[in-house]
Amino acid sequence: MRVAVIHGQNLRLLGRREPEVYGTDTLLDVDTLLADLGAELGIELETFQSNHEGEILDFVDEASGRVDGFLINPGALTHTSIGLRDALLGVDRPFVEVHLSNTQARERFRRRSFLSGVATGVVYGFGVESYLLGLRGLAAHIGG
Amino acid sequence: MRVAVIHGQNLRLLGRREPEVYGTDTLLDVDTLLADLGAELGIELETFQSNHEGEILDFVDEASGRVDGFLINPGALTHTSIGLRDALLGVDRPFVEVHLSNTQARERFRRRSFLSGVATGVVYGFGVESYLLGLRGLAAHIGG
Amino acid sequence: MRVAVIHGQNLRLLGRREPEVYGTDTLLDVDTLLADLGAELGIELETFQSNHEGEILDFVDEASGRVDGFLINPGALTHTSIGLRDALLGVDRPFVEVHLSNTQARERFRRRSFLSGVATGVVYGFGVESYLLGLRGLAAHIGG
Amino acid sequence: MRVAVIHGQNLRLLGRREPEVYGTDTLLDVDTLLADLGAELGIELETFQSNHEGEILDFVDEASGRVDGFLINPGALTHTSIGLRDALLGVDRPFVEVHLSNTQARERFRRRSFLSGVATGVVYGFGVESYLLGLRGLAAHIGG
Amino acid sequence: MRVAVIHGQNLRLLGRREPEVYGTDTLLDVDTLLADLGAELGIELETFQSNHEGEILDFVDEASGRVDGFLINPGALTHTSIGLRDALLGVDRPFVEVHLSNTQARERFRRRSFLSGVATGVVYGFGVESYLLGLRGLAAHIGG
Amino acid sequence: MRVAVIHGQNLRLLGRREPEVYGTDTLLDVDTLLADLGAELGIELETFQSNHEGEILDFVDEASGRVDGFLINPGALTHTSIGLRDALLGVDRPFVEVHLSNTQARERFRRRSFLSGVATGVVYGFGVESYLLGLRGLAAHIGG
Amino acid sequence: MRVAVIHGQNLRLLGRREPEVYGTDTLLDVDTLLADLGAELGIELETFQSNHEGEILDFVDEASGRVDGFLINPGALTHTSIGLRDALLGVDRPFVEVHLSNTQARERFRRRSFLSGVATGVVYGFGVESYLLGLRGLAAHIGG
Amino acid sequence: MRVAVIHGQNLRLLGRREPEVYGTDTLLDVDTLLADLGAELGIELETFQSNHEGEILDFVDEASGRVDGFLINPGALTHTSIGLRDALLGVDRPFVEVHLSNTQARERFRRRSFLSGVATGVVYGFGVESYLLGLRGLAAHIGG
Amino acid sequence: MRVAVIHGQNLRLLGRREPEVYGTDTLLDVDTLLADLGAELGIELETFQSNHEGEILDFVDEASGRVDGFLINPGALTHTSIGLRDALLGVDRPFVEVHLSNTQARERFRRRSFLSGVATGVVYGFGVESYLLGLRGLAAHIGG
Amino acid sequence: MRVAVIHGQNLRLLGRREPEVYGTDTLLDVDTLLADLGAELGIELETFQSNHEGEILDFVDEASGRVDGFLINPGALTHTSIGLRDALLGVDRPFVEVHLSNTQARERFRRRSFLSGVATGVVYGFGVESYLLGLRGLAAHIGG
Amino acid sequence: MRVAVIHGQNLRLLGRREPEVYGTDTLLDVDTLLADLGAELGIELETFQSNHEGEILDFVDEASGRVDGFLINPGALTHTSIGLRDALLGVDRPFVEVHLSNTQARERFRRRSFLSGVATGVVYGFGVESYLLGLRGLAAHIGG
Amino acid sequence: MRVAVIHGQNLRLLGRREPEVYGTDTLLDVDTLLADLGAELGIELETFQSNHEGEILDFVDEASGRVDGFLINPGALTHTSIGLRDALLGVDRPFVEVHLSNTQARERFRRRSFLSGVATGVVYGFGVESYLLGLRGLAAHIGG
Repeated sequence: MRVAVIHGQNLRLLGRREPEVYGTDTLLDVDTLLADLGAELGIELETFQSNHEGEILDFVDEASGRVDGFLINPGALTHTSIGLRDALLGVDRPFVEVHLSNTQARERFRRRSFLSGVATGVVYGFGVESYLLGLRGLAAHIGG
Repeated sequence: MRVAVIHGQNLRLLGRREPEVYGTDTLLDVDTLLADLGAELGIELETFQSNHEGEILDFVDEASGRVDGFLINPGALTHTSIGLRDALLGVDRPFVEVHLSNTQARERFRRRSFLSGVATGVVYGFGVESYLLGLRGLAAHIGG
Repeated sequence: MRVAVIHGQNLRLLGRREPEVYGTDTLLDVDTLLADLGAELGIELETFQSNHEGEILDFVDEASGRVDGFLINPGALTHTSIGLRDALLGVDRPFVEVHLSNTQARERFRRRSFLSGVATGVVYGFGVESYLLGLRGLAAHIGG
Repeated sequence: MRVAVIHGQNLRLLGRREPEVYGTDTLLDVDTLLADLGAELGIELETFQSNHEGEILDFVDEASGRVDGFLINPGALTHTSIGLRDALLGVDRPFVEVHLSNTQARERFRRRSFLSGVATGVVYGFGVESYLLGLRGLAAHIGG
Repeated sequence: MRVAVIHGQNLRLLGRREPEVYGTDTLLDVDTLLADLGAELGIELETFQSNHEGEILDFVDEASGRVDGFLINPGALTHTSIGLRDALLGVDRPFVEVHLSNTQARERFRRRSFLSGVATGVVYGFGVESYLLGLRGLAAHIGG
Repeated sequence: MRVAVIHGQNLRLLGRREPEVYGTDTLLDVDTLLADLGAELGIELETFQSNHEGEILDFVDEASGRVDGFLINPGALTHTSIGLRDALLGVDRPFVEVHLSNTQARERFRRRSFLSGVATGVVYGFGVESYLLGLRGLAAHIGG
Repeated sequence: MRVAVIHGQNLRLLGRREPEVYGTDTLLDVDTLLADLGAELGIELETFQSNHEGEILDFVDEASGRVDGFLINPGALTHTSIGLRDALLGVDRPFVEVHLSNTQARERFRRRSFLSGVATGVVYGFGVESYLLGLRGLAAHIGG
Repeated sequence: MRVAVIHGQNLRLLGRREPEVYGTDTLLDVDTLLADLGAELGIELETFQSNHEGEILDFVDEASGRVDGFLINPGALTHTSIGLRDALLGVDRPFVEVHLSNTQARERFRRRSFLSGVATGVVYGFGVESYLLGLRGLAAHIGG
Repeated sequence: MRVAVIHGQNLRLLGRREPEVYGTDTLLDVDTLLADLGAELGIELETFQSNHEGEILDFVDEASGRVDGFLINPGALTHTSIGLRDALLGVDRPFVEVHLSNTQARERFRRRSFLSGVATGVVYGFGVESYLLGLRGLAAHIGG
Repeated sequence: MRVAVIHGQNLRLLGRREPEVYGTDTLLDVDTLLADLGAELGIELETFQSNHEGEILDFVDEASGRVDGFLINPGALTHTSIGLRDALLGVDRPFVEVHLSNTQARERFRRRSFLSGVATGVVYGFGVESYLLGLRGLAAHIGG
Repeated sequence: MRVAVIHGQNLRLLGRREPEVYGTDTLLDVDTLLADLGAELGIELETFQSNHEGEILDFVDEASGRVDGFLINPGALTHTSIGLRDALLGVDRPFVEVHLSNTQARERFRRRSFLSGVATGVVYGFGVESYLLGLRGLAAHIGG
Repeated sequence: MRVAVIHGQNLRLLGRREPEVYGTDTLLDVDTLLADLGAELGIELETFQSNHEGEILDFVDEASGRVDGFLINPGALTHTSIGLRDALLGVDRPFVEVHLSNTQARERFRRRSFLSGVATGVVYGFGVESYLLGLRGLAAHIGG
C-alpha cells in the first residue's frame, strides 16, 4: 500500500505559526510520526508540501498513478479551492482530509470545506494526532 | 483511564437501517470492536444507548464523576440538541464526536453540528472505524 | 393490513387546546372515527400517544415488525425532530403525515417539516378529517 | 353539491410525462376515477384543463357562481402564480390543493406554494389517489 | 394626449373581491371616474382588462404606436412578471404604476414589484383615488 | 381641513443637491405650489423642515392636536427611523408618504421604508408633482 | 395564588456548570430564595426540574389544572422546542420566561426563543435575581 | 445609590399612543411609581425624556459622573441606535434595558436590540411593571 | 432532422426594443439567418413566437411529436416559468437555450434560469449569433 | 485650502471610553495634532463635534460654502445614517472617512458603512494617526 | 485574426476524469478539433494549459499584445478567481467563456462565474462542441 | 526599520489596466514614489510583485525574518485568499492593506476582504497616494 501525504498552504510555518492554535510541533515532527506509523502499518509514504494551489493539482495528477490514496491537510485551500476538489475527484483515488485545529470552532469562513463532501473520511481537532488517525482510517478503508 | 461511549438516536437500528449509508454491522459489533481496542489501549469502557435526549443529558451528568472523557455518536441529536452541547460543556470533560457516515455529503440539515465547535476532536465518514479512530484520539488527548 | 397511528406532542390536549385552531374533538373522538374507518377498510389499528420524542422513536422501532405502515401526526416534532425522520426511514415502512390545521397558514417556523420529503403522502388542513383521508391514502398505497 | 376540478399546466401530458414521477395514468383516467367517486358521494363535477394562467383565472371567476368549491392541481403555477391565489380568494369559495407527486421531495423551487396558506386543505404524494382524497376532504368540508 | 389604462389580473372581480381590502367600487366605476378626469384634463383614454399576461404584452406592443403613456394596475403580475417590465421598457413609453391597496402593508411577497424601478412614478394605497392621482401624475409628466 | 407638511433630512438642499436626481426646484418652490393647491382644495397648510429626527418626532406630537393629517417626505429617515413610524402611529392621524425620486430605482438600501406599511398612501417618482398628488390623495382620504 | 416553577435542561448542574456564566448558586439555593419570596408575596409554589422535553410537556399539561401561572427557565429548550411553546399556549395559563445569563450576549443560536413571543414577560441577565424578578412580574400580572 | 432613568423616543405619548399595546398609564404615572419604589429601596432617581438620540447621548455622558447605573427604555432607538450602545459602553456604568410591550411578539424589525447584548439585564412585556422590575434588578446588581 | 425554434415574450419587439441591449436586427432577420443555416446543415425548421406562456406550453406539447429538438429563447419566461421547464422535460426532447444579451451582466433577477439546469446546452451574449451557435450545437447533439 | 473636521457620536468620550479599543488620547489631543499637521500642510482647519445627526447635517450644509472638503469620523453614525451620506453627496465636496479602530475587526454591524462607497478615500485602524493620514490624503486629492 | 485558447485547472485530466461528466475526448482531441476549425475560419490559434492561477494571469498579460481575443475554459477557477476576471478586463480583449458540462446542472457552488458578467459570450453544456461554438462566436464578434 | 512592499495580482498591468479605475501611473511610478518617501522616513524598502498566491505566501514566510512589517496591495487576492491571511498572521508581523481604488464603491464581491480584520490599518481610495499613506501609517505603528 502506498499513500501520498499532502501538506497545503502555510504548513511550512508549523511550530512557529500561532502556537496556541497549531501547537509547537514542526512539519518535520509530523512527518517523522507519520513515517513511524507508516512503518508499523506497512504503508509506503511520500510527502509533499506546497503553498501553490497549482503545484498541488499537478502533484495530485502526477502521483495518482503510483499511490493508493491521499492523506491531505490542505490548509486554507480547504475553504477556497474547488480545483483541488476537482483534482481529487478526477484521479479517482480515496483521500482523507485532516486538520490540526478544530476548524468548526474558529472563524465562520473556516466552516465550509470544498473537500469534506467527497472525502472518504475527515478527522480534525486532535493536533498532530489528526494526521495519525487519518492515516489509520485511510489504511483501513483501502485495506478493507 | 475510563471512557463512556454514548450511542444516540436510532443507533439501536444499526445493521437494519439504510445499510447503503450505515453498513451492516450492528451496535453489538461496534461495542465488541471498541472493547477490543479499549483492552489494547488500557481503557475501561462503559456504553450507553438511548433515543431520549433527556436520558442522555441525565447520563452525561451522572457518569461525569467517574469517567475521564466521552466518545459520542449523537445520531440526529447532533443537529438539533443544544441541551447536549450544554451538558457536555457543563460537566467539563473532554469528548470526541464521531459519525459512521460522511455527514457533509448528505442532506443540508446534517451539515451543522451543535457539538463540533466544543468537541476535542471530530471523526466521520469511516463507518465503524470512525468509533475506533475516535477512541484512539480521545485516549491520546487524555493521555497527552 | 395493520397500521400504527402515532399522535405526537401535545395531542393529549386536543379539544382543550386553542379550539379556534384545532377544533373541539378530543383525541378519543379521533381514535373512534379512525377505528370505524379502519373497520370499514379492513385495517387493524393500534394507536400511540406520547409527548416524548424518545418514546416515539422507541415505538417506531418496536412496532415496525408488526405493522405495514404508520399514520403520524407528530405535532411540533414535525418541525424539530430529525431523529423521527431517521427512525421512520430506518425501519423502512411507508408512512403518511397528517395535521389537523393548515400548517402553511400559521407561523413561519411551522412551514418546514423534516418528515414531508420522505413521507408517502401528506394531508393537512381538514381538521379531524385529515386523519381519515390519511388513513385512506395509506391503505391505497399499501394495498396498491 | 357541485365542484369544479381544475387541472393546471402540463397535466395534459399525464401518462407520457416523466412516468417515474407522475405514473402512467392519463388525465382521462383521473377524470374517470373522480367521476366515479363524485357519483358515490353525490357530487356534480365539472372539469377544466388549461396551460394558460389567464384562462384559469377567467374560469375561476366564471365558474364561481355555480359551484360550491374547487379541487385544483395547479401544476407549476403552484409555485409562480400569485394571480391564482388572488382569484381563489377573490371568489370566496373553499378550495383544496392536490399534487400527484410529493412536491417536498423534489427541487427546492417546488417547496413553496402560493396557494397552500389560503387553501382549505392540501393533499399530495399519493399519485392519482391525491385527487380522490382531496375530493373527499372538500366534500366533508362543504358538507360539514 | 392619449393614454392607455391597463387593468391586470383579477381586476374584473373588483367590488366583489375581498371588499375589506379593495373596496366596493366596480371596475366600471373606476373607468367612469377616469373618463371624467380624462375629460377634465383633455386626455383621450382607452382601457383594457385581461387576466392573461400574454394578452397584456400583446396590447402594450400594439397600443404603443398610438398612445403617449400607460396607466397600469397589473394586479398580481406586479410581483411575478418580468415580461411586463420588458414590454413596457421595450416600447419606450412613460408609464405609471398604481395599486388600490397599500401593497407594502400586506403579504411579504407583495413587497417586490418588477415594474416600480422602471416606472415614471408609483401611487398606491388610496383605493380608487390611486388611479386618479396616477393619471394626473402621468399627465403632468407627459405634459411637463 | 388642516394638514401639516413635513420635509425631512436634507430637503433644505433642494435645488442645489444632485439636480439630476432631485430637479432644480427649491423647497420654497415646493411650498408655493403646495400653498396654491391647498388654496384650491380648501386646505389650511403648515410646513415644517428639520434634519433632526427628534425635532420631527416632537413636531408630530405637538401638531397632532391641530391637524387632520400629515403629508411627509422624510428624506433618508424613510429608511432608518422606526421612531418616526411609531410617532405617526402614536398620534393616530392619517399620513401620506411622498418622495421626489423613484426610490425603487436607486440604491438597494432605499427600497425599504419603515413608513409605507402604515401610511394611508404612498406617491413617488413624479418630482415635485409627488407632493401635489400626495396632498390630493390625503384630502380625498380625509374628506372621503 | 399558585405558581409552578419549571427548571429545564441541565439546570441540575447549576453551581457546578460553567460558573463564570451561571454563577455558583445551586438549584437548591434558587428554590430557597423563591420560596422566601413566594411566602412574602403570598404565593404557593411547586417546583419541577427535568432534562426531558416530554416530561416537561406532561407536567405543564398535568399542573395546569391547579396553578395560576408558570415561571419557567427552559434551559436549552428555549431555542429548540416548539412543543414547549405549544404546550404553554395549549393550557392557556400566563407564563414568564427567565434566564440566568444574558442570552443575547452569547452564541448566535441562543438569540432565538420559541417562547418569548407568547410569554407574558421575559427577564434575563440578572443571575438568580432573574427568577425573583420573574416571579414578582408574574404575580403582578395575575394579581393585576 | 443613584440611578438615572431614561425614557427614549415617543414615550411622551404614553397613555395616548396605541393603548392596546402600551396601556393607559402616562409617563407621569410611570415616574411616580418609580419614585415610590426608589424611596422604598433607598435609591435616588433622576429621570430624562427625549426624542433626540443626540440629547440622550449627551445625557448619558454628562450624567455618568453622578450615577451608579442607568435604567433605560430607549423606545424605537433600541433597534436603530448603535450610538446609544457605544455611549453606554463608553461611560462604563451598568444599565438595564426595559420595554413595556413584548417586543418579540411584534414586527420583525423590533426583534433586534443593539443594547441587549451589552446590558446587565433585560426586562420586557410586563407593561409599567417592567420598569419596576428593571429598577429592582439594577439595584440588586449594583448592591450585589 | 427537424427542429422547432421558439421565440418567447417580447421578441416580436426585436429591432425596436432597447437596441443598445438587443441590437437592430428584427425577428425576421433572425429567422432568415436561421433558415439559411438550417439549409446548410440539412435541418428542417419551424418557428413559433408567442407572448403567452400557455401558448408556448401548448406548442411544445403539440410539436414534440414531429421534431427532434427545440431551440428556444424564452425571453423573460426564462426567469419566471417553471411550467416551461416542466413542459420541455415532459416531452422528452433535447433543447438548447439561447439569449441575445449577456443575461449575467444585467439585473440580478435575470441571473436565474429555470431552464438552464435541464437544457442540453446554453449559449448567450453573442447577439443574433447566439441563435446560430445554438442551432449548430443542437444539431451536433442530435446528430452525435 | 480649508477643511472641516467633523467628530461624530461619542467622540467627546475619547480618552475615557473603552481605552483598549480607542486609546488614551483625548479629542483635544487629536485636534492639536491635526492643527499641527494643518499648519505644516498649509490647510486652514475648523472642527465640529456633535452627538446629534441633525446637527451634523446642518453643519455640512452650512460649512459647505466655505470649505474645500471634509474629514469625518462619524462614530456610530457610520453604520446607521443614510442622511449623512445624502448630505455629503448633496453639498458636492470631497470627503475622507476615518476611524480610530479597525472597524472590520469588531462587531458584525460595524462592517457596513453608508459613507465608504461615496467617500474619496477611507483610512482606519491606525488610532489617532488615522486622522492625520486622512488629512494628508484629502489634501493630496484636493491639491492634486 | 489570432486567438489564444486557455485551458484552466485540471483540464489536463480530460478523458480520464469523471467521463460521465466530461466525456472521453482528451485535451489533445479538443486542440485538434479547434485547429481544424481555426483553419476553416482562417484563425491562427495558440493554446495554453495550466493548473496555476498565477501562470494564467501571466499568460493573459503577455499574450494580450499579440492576439485579438481569448477562448477560455477556466475549469474551477471560473467560480473562485476574481484575479482572472481582473486580468481579462485589464488587457481589454474580447473573450468567450466555455464549459464542457452544464455547470448550472451541477453543485450549487458552480452556478456562479466571476467571468460570465464581463465575457463577450458564454457557451456550455455541449461537451467538446462547446469549444467549437465558442470559437465561432468569438470569430463572429471580432470579425463583426 | 525595514518594510516589504507586496504588489499582488495584476498590478503589473498598472497604467494600462482600466485607467478610469486605476489611473495612469505604472507600478514603477508607485515604487519610485515609495522609495522617495522611504528615504524621507528612514525606511529600507524591498518590493515584490507576483500574480501567484503561492509565491506571495512563500515570500511572506521568507521575508518575515528580515523585515519589521509589510505594506500590501493584494489585488484580487484580497477577496479570495484565506491563505494570505493565514500567512500574514502566521509570521506575526504588522501589515497595512492598501488599495488604489475605493473597493466599497465597486462590485459587491469586492466588499469583503479576508485581510482587513487582521490588519494593523487599512487605506483605500486615494489612488497611488494610498500606498504613501499606508507606508506612513505602518511606520508610525512600528515606530510608535
